Amino acid sequence: MACTRCGNHQAFSYDRVTCTCGGSLLVEYDMEFASKTMTKMAIQSRSASIWRYKELLPVTSSEDIVSLGEGWTPLTYMDIQAIGLPVSHVWIKREELNPTGSFKARGMSVAVSLLKERGARYAAVSSNGNAASALAAYAGCAGIQAYVFLPEDCPPLIVQECLSYGARTFRVKGLIQDSGQWVEVGKQLFGWSTVATMKEPGRVEGKKTMGFELAEQMGWKLPSVIIYPTGGGSGLIGMWKAFHELKQMGMISDPLPRMVSVQDAGCSPLVTAMGKHVTVLEAPAATGMRVPRPPDLGLLVRILKETGGKAIAVSQAEIDAAQRNLGYRGVSSSPEGAATWAGLLKLCEEGWIGSDDSVVLFNTCHGLKYGKSPGLESVPLLSNLNELFNKTS
Amino acid sequence: MACTRCGNHQAFSYDRVTCTCGGSLLVEYDMEFASKTMTKMAIQSRSASIWRYKELLPVTSSEDIVSLGEGWTPLTYMDIQAIGLPVSHVWIKREELNPTGSFKARGMSVAVSLLKERGARYAAVSSNGNAASALAAYAGCAGIQAYVFLPEDCPPLIVQECLSYGARTFRVKGLIQDSGQWVEVGKQLFGWSTVATMKEPGRVEGKKTMGFELAEQMGWKLPSVIIYPTGGGSGLIGMWKAFHELKQMGMISDPLPRMVSVQDAGCSPLVTAMGKHVTVLEAPAATGMRVPRPPDLGLLVRILKETGGKAIAVSQAEIDAAQRNLGYRGVSSSPEGAATWAGLLKLCEEGWIGSDDSVVLFNTCHGLKYGKSPGLESVPLLSNLNELFNKTS
Repeated sequence: MACTRCGNHQAFSYDRVTCTCGGSLLVEYDMEFASKTMTKMAIQSRSASIWRYKELLPVTSSEDIVSLGEGWTPLTYMDIQAIGLPVSHVWIKREELNPTGSFKARGMSVAVSLLKERGARYAAVSSNGNAASALAAYAGCAGIQAYVFLPEDCPPLIVQECLSYGARTFRVKGLIQDSGQWVEVGKQLFGWSTVATMKEPGRVEGKKTMGFELAEQMGWKLPSVIIYPTGGGSGLIGMWKAFHELKQMGMISDPLPRMVSVQDAGCSPLVTAMGKHVTVLEAPAATGMRVPRPPDLGLLVRILKETGGKAIAVSQAEIDAAQRNLGYRGVSSSPEGAATWAGLLKLCEEGWIGSDDSVVLFNTCHGLKYGKSPGLESVPLLSNLNELFNKTS
Repeated sequence: MACTRCGNHQAFSYDRVTCTCGGSLLVEYDMEFASKTMTKMAIQSRSASIWRYKELLPVTSSEDIVSLGEGWTPLTYMDIQAIGLPVSHVWIKREELNPTGSFKARGMSVAVSLLKERGARYAAVSSNGNAASALAAYAGCAGIQAYVFLPEDCPPLIVQECLSYGARTFRVKGLIQDSGQWVEVGKQLFGWSTVATMKEPGRVEGKKTMGFELAEQMGWKLPSVIIYPTGGGSGLIGMWKAFHELKQMGMISDPLPRMVSVQDAGCSPLVTAMGKHVTVLEAPAATGMRVPRPPDLGLLVRILKETGGKAIAVSQAEIDAAQRNLGYRGVSSSPEGAATWAGLLKLCEEGWIGSDDSVVLFNTCHGLKYGKSPGLESVPLLSNLNELFNKTS
């Protein structure tokens, strides 16, 4: 593993992923060896999952791979002509079509495979919701007992999802860092393995595959801008790592995309860390973006600066409008995914994104998971023909 | 198009899909032409969607294709050793990972593309839920106004989904055939195009791709048994057609799988039509299997008989247990998908499926879509450490 801050190297570890200097340790590979077998041609006929890139994933024995069909999600093209946005091309990476309905499946597939490899029996995570349900599913599949800790206001369907996958499920008063302490306690007292963000090596590696796929699906080219909703930030770190690895292998030559983090205006530590003042007008919504203290804020800032990207905040009203707009185009977006569309509009308006840019948005989660059973009173209930005339005329 | 009953041929029609003899007309292709370009090698590098089989889909102009990333869903292997089921292999085709969370996306992608091709402005369907939300999404994407009619007890989240995609959404007292009349009225009075099951040519063709994908994902082999939840039955008809087309092109040589229809014990017209008496003990649940009068029951009976398959009924209690079991293995199954697992257990018990059989189940829809916001009272809400000790000890 290599430290992203001081550059020091150390042997692979299942749980020691912070360097003595405080930097994050990320997994290293024998790139020369990987280059030989992971060729563009070879992977073309491999399975449509993250495991098509197995040379650059840290699981040693293929029997330990815990897979539920994660990855190789569609990259759909958006017809934006009618809107008149001053941008060349827009695609959406449809991460909601992963098992468990979010991109978190990628990271948990790798993290739980590593747990299986080391013979772990219990795994725990504190999460805003989607990492918890992904852990629940993959742990269930692997025969590992999951313990998940969710904030009190976690969307009820996600709580239900965790239960349906057999996780021992707890709600905790407060935010994600408050529930984090419960996992630490369980680690000490009950021998739980933690799969919290940046506390083990698998999740970043799994999320990295979003970057590999993006390059492969675009014919080994890269867009000029990526807009990504950012909470803990390991998706962003993963993709940045992926692009560097592909460059090292000579599989891509484009410059790295300008990476944009979108955050909830109510909770935007990365925007602040990038030196911009955010006026907090509202409490953040209970989404994956609500992470007041990302584990490695310094690395996120470095990635945004290195790629010429930026961090922006969007309001709840902008997210709501974006969710409606994407819905009318046939895309079920989560608040996080909708935030990327809101971000795109904002950056076009500012002129930061222009007509030469090709942009990829990440819809990280299925809108359904945030659904509330609606009051059906607003939906007409017909019992005779005359009613149909009245309602459609 | 060719009649499945009398064998007569007629030219392609957007809306005349019933022969004068009463049989269903299905789309025909120039198979010799298709064989030349749709080779095993050629499709390998095509997009991971149903449109990789475009030679055998009825949309003429590629500009009219309305795609949201449907198809090429994972086929995941189930580790059944621990259960000791007397069967060789079991896979699940993960249709819940389609856009709009169900296999209905496949059919609607093709049906709405055909509507776009003919310049339709309005489209309508009566549906138990998933066809409606799929129409809503694809029509939204194509700029066509959707009108959807749902039974009164349709799962609330699916009603919400239709609204979120911009469909004009109505609930109707009664079952699916009762809401069918509203669509017919709209067709006469307002010029709506109907996309009801077996009333236009696109949906069967789209669903056919499940059969193509199954063959391709299994290395151009077929399983010995397919278990499929059956309502209107067009998925079954589509796959049957797919296997015949692949045989005609010389792409597969295995015998057709024994096709098994699973139905809800409360509504199992196909089981009855196959000559078996079903004691109705309970009202059918509001799922896609609740179709008392499938449009072409005769064809379904023929397919089951021709392939040596059968129709079976499972109870609500069996479906519930199956849903829990699949959940604990990390699979979010809808009642329809869970019914296929219940069917597998039953057929193993009967000895109809044995240790030589390889079986594919179809999880047609995401379990989430049937979710109700749970009473969160049952989920512990922790505020201090002692509580964690108490709850986990």
